[in-house]
Amino acid sequence: MVWNAEIEDLVRRTLAEDCVHDDVTTSAVLNGVGGTISAIVRTREAGVFSGEAVVAAFEKLTPLKIQCLVTDGAAVEVGQDLVRLSGTAADCLALERSLLNFLALACGIASKTRRFVEAAGPYPTKILATRKTLPGLRALQLLAVQHGGGLVHRRDLSDGILIKDNHLLVCELEEAVKRAQVSHSPLHRVEVEVDNLEQLRRVLALNPDVVMLDNFSANDLRQAMELVKGQLKVEVSGGIQLEDIPQLAAYGVDFISVGALTHTIKGLDLTLEVVQP
Amino acid sequence: MVWNAEIEDLVRRTLAEDCVHDDVTTSAVLNGVGGTISAIVRTREAGVFSGEAVVAAFEKLTPLKIQCLVTDGAAVEVGQDLVRLSGTAADCLALERSLLNFLALACGIASKTRRFVEAAGPYPTKILATRKTLPGLRALQLLAVQHGGGLVHRRDLSDGILIKDNHLLVCELEEAVKRAQVSHSPLHRVEVEVDNLEQLRRVLALNPDVVMLDNFSANDLRQAMELVKGQLKVEVSGGIQLEDIPQLAAYGVDFISVGALTHTIKGLDLTLEVVQP
Amino acid sequence: MVWNAEIEDLVRRTLAEDCVHDDVTTSAVLNGVGGTISAIVRTREAGVFSGEAVVAAFEKLTPLKIQCLVTDGAAVEVGQDLVRLSGTAADCLALERSLLNFLALACGIASKTRRFVEAAGPYPTKILATRKTLPGLRALQLLAVQHGGGLVHRRDLSDGILIKDNHLLVCELEEAVKRAQVSHSPLHRVEVEVDNLEQLRRVLALNPDVVMLDNFSANDLRQAMELVKGQLKVEVSGGIQLEDIPQLAAYGVDFISVGALTHTIKGLDLTLEVVQP
Amino acid sequence: MVWNAEIEDLVRRTLAEDCVHDDVTTSAVLNGVGGTISAIVRTREAGVFSGEAVVAAFEKLTPLKIQCLVTDGAAVEVGQDLVRLSGTAADCLALERSLLNFLALACGIASKTRRFVEAAGPYPTKILATRKTLPGLRALQLLAVQHGGGLVHRRDLSDGILIKDNHLLVCELEEAVKRAQVSHSPLHRVEVEVDNLEQLRRVLALNPDVVMLDNFSANDLRQAMELVKGQLKVEVSGGIQLEDIPQLAAYGVDFISVGALTHTIKGLDLTLEVVQP
Amino acid sequence: MVWNAEIEDLVRRTLAEDCVHDDVTTSAVLNGVGGTISAIVRTREAGVFSGEAVVAAFEKLTPLKIQCLVTDGAAVEVGQDLVRLSGTAADCLALERSLLNFLALACGIASKTRRFVEAAGPYPTKILATRKTLPGLRALQLLAVQHGGGLVHRRDLSDGILIKDNHLLVCELEEAVKRAQVSHSPLHRVEVEVDNLEQLRRVLALNPDVVMLDNFSANDLRQAMELVKGQLKVEVSGGIQLEDIPQLAAYGVDFISVGALTHTIKGLDLTLEVVQP
Amino acid sequence: MVWNAEIEDLVRRTLAEDCVHDDVTTSAVLNGVGGTISAIVRTREAGVFSGEAVVAAFEKLTPLKIQCLVTDGAAVEVGQDLVRLSGTAADCLALERSLLNFLALACGIASKTRRFVEAAGPYPTKILATRKTLPGLRALQLLAVQHGGGLVHRRDLSDGILIKDNHLLVCELEEAVKRAQVSHSPLHRVEVEVDNLEQLRRVLALNPDVVMLDNFSANDLRQAMELVKGQLKVEVSGGIQLEDIPQLAAYGVDFISVGALTHTIKGLDLTLEVVQP
Repeated sequence: MVWNAEIEDLVRRTLAEDCVHDDVTTSAVLNGVGGTISAIVRTREAGVFSGEAVVAAFEKLTPLKIQCLVTDGAAVEVGQDLVRLSGTAADCLALERSLLNFLALACGIASKTRRFVEAAGPYPTKILATRKTLPGLRALQLLAVQHGGGLVHRRDLSDGILIKDNHLLVCELEEAVKRAQVSHSPLHRVEVEVDNLEQLRRVLALNPDVVMLDNFSANDLRQAMELVKGQLKVEVSGGIQLEDIPQLAAYGVDFISVGALTHTIKGLDLTLEVVQP
Repeated sequence: MVWNAEIEDLVRRTLAEDCVHDDVTTSAVLNGVGGTISAIVRTREAGVFSGEAVVAAFEKLTPLKIQCLVTDGAAVEVGQDLVRLSGTAADCLALERSLLNFLALACGIASKTRRFVEAAGPYPTKILATRKTLPGLRALQLLAVQHGGGLVHRRDLSDGILIKDNHLLVCELEEAVKRAQVSHSPLHRVEVEVDNLEQLRRVLALNPDVVMLDNFSANDLRQAMELVKGQLKVEVSGGIQLEDIPQLAAYGVDFISVGALTHTIKGLDLTLEVVQP
Repeated sequence: MVWNAEIEDLVRRTLAEDCVHDDVTTSAVLNGVGGTISAIVRTREAGVFSGEAVVAAFEKLTPLKIQCLVTDGAAVEVGQDLVRLSGTAADCLALERSLLNFLALACGIASKTRRFVEAAGPYPTKILATRKTLPGLRALQLLAVQHGGGLVHRRDLSDGILIKDNHLLVCELEEAVKRAQVSHSPLHRVEVEVDNLEQLRRVLALNPDVVMLDNFSANDLRQAMELVKGQLKVEVSGGIQLEDIPQLAAYGVDFISVGALTHTIKGLDLTLEVVQP
Repeated sequence: MVWNAEIEDLVRRTLAEDCVHDDVTTSAVLNGVGGTISAIVRTREAGVFSGEAVVAAFEKLTPLKIQCLVTDGAAVEVGQDLVRLSGTAADCLALERSLLNFLALACGIASKTRRFVEAAGPYPTKILATRKTLPGLRALQLLAVQHGGGLVHRRDLSDGILIKDNHLLVCELEEAVKRAQVSHSPLHRVEVEVDNLEQLRRVLALNPDVVMLDNFSANDLRQAMELVKGQLKVEVSGGIQLEDIPQLAAYGVDFISVGALTHTIKGLDLTLEVVQP
Repeated sequence: MVWNAEIEDLVRRTLAEDCVHDDVTTSAVLNGVGGTISAIVRTREAGVFSGEAVVAAFEKLTPLKIQCLVTDGAAVEVGQDLVRLSGTAADCLALERSLLNFLALACGIASKTRRFVEAAGPYPTKILATRKTLPGLRALQLLAVQHGGGLVHRRDLSDGILIKDNHLLVCELEEAVKRAQVSHSPLHRVEVEVDNLEQLRRVLALNPDVVMLDNFSANDLRQAMELVKGQLKVEVSGGIQLEDIPQLAAYGVDFISVGALTHTIKGLDLTLEVVQP
Repeated sequence: MVWNAEIEDLVRRTLAEDCVHDDVTTSAVLNGVGGTISAIVRTREAGVFSGEAVVAAFEKLTPLKIQCLVTDGAAVEVGQDLVRLSGTAADCLALERSLLNFLALACGIASKTRRFVEAAGPYPTKILATRKTLPGLRALQLLAVQHGGGLVHRRDLSDGILIKDNHLLVCELEEAVKRAQVSHSPLHRVEVEVDNLEQLRRVLALNPDVVMLDNFSANDLRQAMELVKGQLKVEVSGGIQLEDIPQLAAYGVDFISVGALTHTIKGLDLTLEVVQP
């Protein structure tokens, strides 16, 4: 569904945040001049597009006529046209910055995700986004990750069971896993984070659905994969960089979670050009 | 005022976004065990703290007892304690990720800003944040910039007059400046963006309050400063990097605006450690 | 976490809905009389309590002093005191109806759920709530189900994969299951609804995680359990009544989903009695 | 006015509650298949329709094309088509459950109300809904009651003066009525609840506009009607069942308030059938 | 109930509207100086106080310590202290204007209302506020009217039946009244607006509960009162000024509605004085 | 931009405030009669129109067809048509009061502002609105001031630096101005309020951008203008009436701020007339 109420709400708040209905510059300068203009959002670097829901929200909420020229997930080149808009000069200029802020963010995330996905190359290993998102932007960020080809680990705390080290400070491992196994939705799995091989052995005996190997060295990881022997799904995590991906995928891990997809941000370089002043 | 209604509202939405009141893992695992625990948010790298308003919002909105151990704008070292919290194990673990996402973002921005401010060294040049912020996060981001020692250029479109290149596509320069000069608040100034020396000469004749030199080469910038001769305030902008700052400050520009303070994000590396399980 | 932002928000809207701050009767009648009073919410029938989050919201949002006398999930008898409140006579009388409406609903659901759970008797079969909830009340209703001892199937559409008959009208079964198996979170399972034994055989060959037997006759259900042989988890659904539970549990099904827990409502019979006028 | 901002707001929150914009099943299964489909909401039992405002909200807020095939208040038969919708397969399947949850609830209330209204048969006695509604659903529920032929007693506490037993614990009866009579809108009446014949006599001497006979036995009720002799309007209340209505109407009471119209819920049995896959 | 959720919400929005958490003057000027100060809101003219709910909202929402020194409805003199507040200098100065804007408005309305009420002198005639309120301020304005001694006619369109001239353009009088009489809450009355004596005669024959005489001359009003002879309640309306009140009250009308109480605004003259800098 | 999200939100809340979707009179009286009607909002006195954003919001939010017949800022005569609307009789009658309340307020403010602007006659002196606005109505009120030809002083506390007497109670004048001058946006000016000539002399030495002469006598004002000699901008304030404007403008002050534009309200006299019943 392109229509996305959470993103529409975010666009509404963002336009309020920039006081787009009270642009003192265009009020003073354009008052009475400048009829309808058209403009294009264009790339200044290659990447992956993510923006249909944002553009649909601008179409619904603002007086602009606006449409996407590419679809979510499409690879885009330098200088490619992404979005076309038209409206009064005052409206277009007032909304330019808000629109670019949204698209640069979303396309930047989709583009980075695609690089990680492609780095996993021929292997079936999946790239996952985590809950390390920016406040209030999770819906937008996770959608962009999916447009880049990544999957979502947990949308939020209600979305699956992951037993982490801090849980084990207050509840013993075997007891924690047992409790989780008897009290969850049939649609959820139980995953346990482990920090070393010793812990992995204890966890394997408990038969969870997934194990997360956190900050394992290459050597430990190899041993871990042998221990697991496909008995359950394996996720790796912990400060993973783009250059680590091919090796991890080659080891046969099922999932690699990458916090940096959503906590470290570099927008795709975009520009808005007026095409019919 | 530490109390900040916009940030409080952002915290409220972010906690909802993570479904902190419906953490299926802690419900299953900690049900009935784990009384009150205490924890510390601690740095894993040096930087600048920004977080009092966020922490005040967590104190107000959640059942946690939580307080800052440093003040906004304070330089912090590796391994320094920033925030102390206590509550039931379930509450602390459910809120951990949301709190860290906020603090890493705000401290990351304050820390980056401080590096730019310090790069201007002995000169009175001010570092400015722009409207290139992340959707919905402007209040938080601009506050963090100020904690790092930067100033805010325009909070939003109602907050001052800046005539940019796109305005001049639909209104002639002299007319635009004249209109701006006769129709604004006594508390606002009129700033005009210029792209080259020729345009600068035309603008100087119009006597605005501030001129923004956008994407000027070092050579052009020197000539521009001579043309201006302190007749009005000068701001420079356009993809400025940390290493450009000392030279620009030495030229005597009054303001340097840096979009990257708020559009390119790298959180400060923080961790939450349980201290009394 | 007793604190629940969704329920707090629901309480806020419900108090507005009843105009509790503009009670024309108490304004007219009690103006100047009636100091502080105390009152008790008491049962008029036995059941299971669910209300801590609601009471916490009343404590936070209103001028009442209010506390629970029993904990969520506790079995309560006829005539038992559940909640004690005190405040001005005007405040107590204005808030009485809203409080009772909440508690009667939540306790009614918890009580009904408990009857289904107890009907499964000695078997490990779990009782599940579905998405057939009342508009805007899902958080409250599912919490009450859990207090009654039930589990939640899907909180919402993002919370797990369930392929139903209508999906198969637009996508062929084998293709649908395959797509689902390669594109989901490691924390989610894939469940497929089947309507007859023939379809069950096709589904078993595809190796999903869970199968939902919808509206199976007792005879077909027995055959289905033999076909499955513990190879995957089995859920049954379709207009299931309290009297059906013992037999279904005896068949060894893992989960029974009961829409009536949340779509058919009969509040627990409660009364508020003023104890210190 | 079919347009109803409160119901529109409720629909918006309910769609968010179900994460309809993030349906992981249709995302996985239907991605790229299944063009536009049409579907019908159809009855599986007879009743009364209530749903125009809900359908108008779905039309406005979602990408569906959707319209009612019957009008609010119309009697409907088993197997009758109520609503027609069309849209992408993904949109229709994601929104199915939310739409059915709304319509089943509203039609269920309208249908039950109609049974009470019809039970009053040839008498002018009116059936009233009370403030015993479900949290956050009062607007929807009271509208459905009206579609069933019932009236609303008080929408909320600002909507008229009703002096109840608990008021009389803190203010003496004669004083309470006198205060109410001198301080209310010309558009409001004063009603007093009485629990026995003795109290009724005292109340009649005070000349209120309406008297509510609460939990009167048949015998007491007959005597009460003789005492009143049409001097003021009479309402009866207190756990009234459908089978009590004919007798109460025959006694000549003006109003019968029935909490069960809104606090005890059984949805009308509806189904959504895809008609053009 | 002093606590008023609508007014609390209005205070919240008003503080956001003034960006009190981002006061650039106090940030610049008071940064690091000015500990806790105290201040008093004091009258510069006599009037009637209305402000307890507003002050309670400031106490709850802001960091100020703040309390009323007089109660709602109290007559206040020139130079009287109304409200005492304390807090950091920055907080007090940032919130000063918002607080004064609220109190001046509410006290101004209460004071004007009191003049109208007193003008009715010894007669039992009641002064009514109408729906001619300022957008979004109805709750605040009607509360202030009540503090001044006035009553509320209709809070909103759901709050009672008033048949006006425009209704009669689309529905014949006798039919309109009859429809109203058979389809309303037992707590509501039916009022009909009439423009002349002829229309009054027709209306009297229909036996409504209240008649509104709109824009009647003194002469017509006298005749109208004779026609009515106490058979029903009489309200007069239509541009009524303070000087008209004694005569109207002497004629024996029951209610006088005065739109100017809420549509024509002059705040009470108040000042905030710092008492402990 | 005619589209104004703040005003749209205010219209939404105001319609809810009046329960326009639950008008019990039109429900009872017009049920089944009265097809589409047209109506006109017409002046009963001359003034200045302000209402395009309000009308656009009604067009978007309600079922009415509605459009402005004049543009914002246009002078209008007695009996002039301002707005045309059409819809069902029930919708038009339910929305009439809300629409008139909005337009009377906005046109009243625009009209009063125009009188002040015209009183400044041939001089370049500008009339300014202040922050003395009605709670929640600032956006609407300041827009109307601009339609009347006035300017806005500060929209809110983030919008420019104004050092007032109370700041100087906690910070010494010279220090305050110096702090302000080194810590603000390049788009903001620094203004200082002075109460007497002695203070003015101290302020002039500090070289702020603007000085506000508060409550100066005519004599002091003349001397002040001589002291200033055009060295900086001069604003006068303090209970200024319409009749004071010509003299103040003749003295050559740059700005006159008039709190009464927004704190003292008299709506423009408007009526809605049904033209096609």
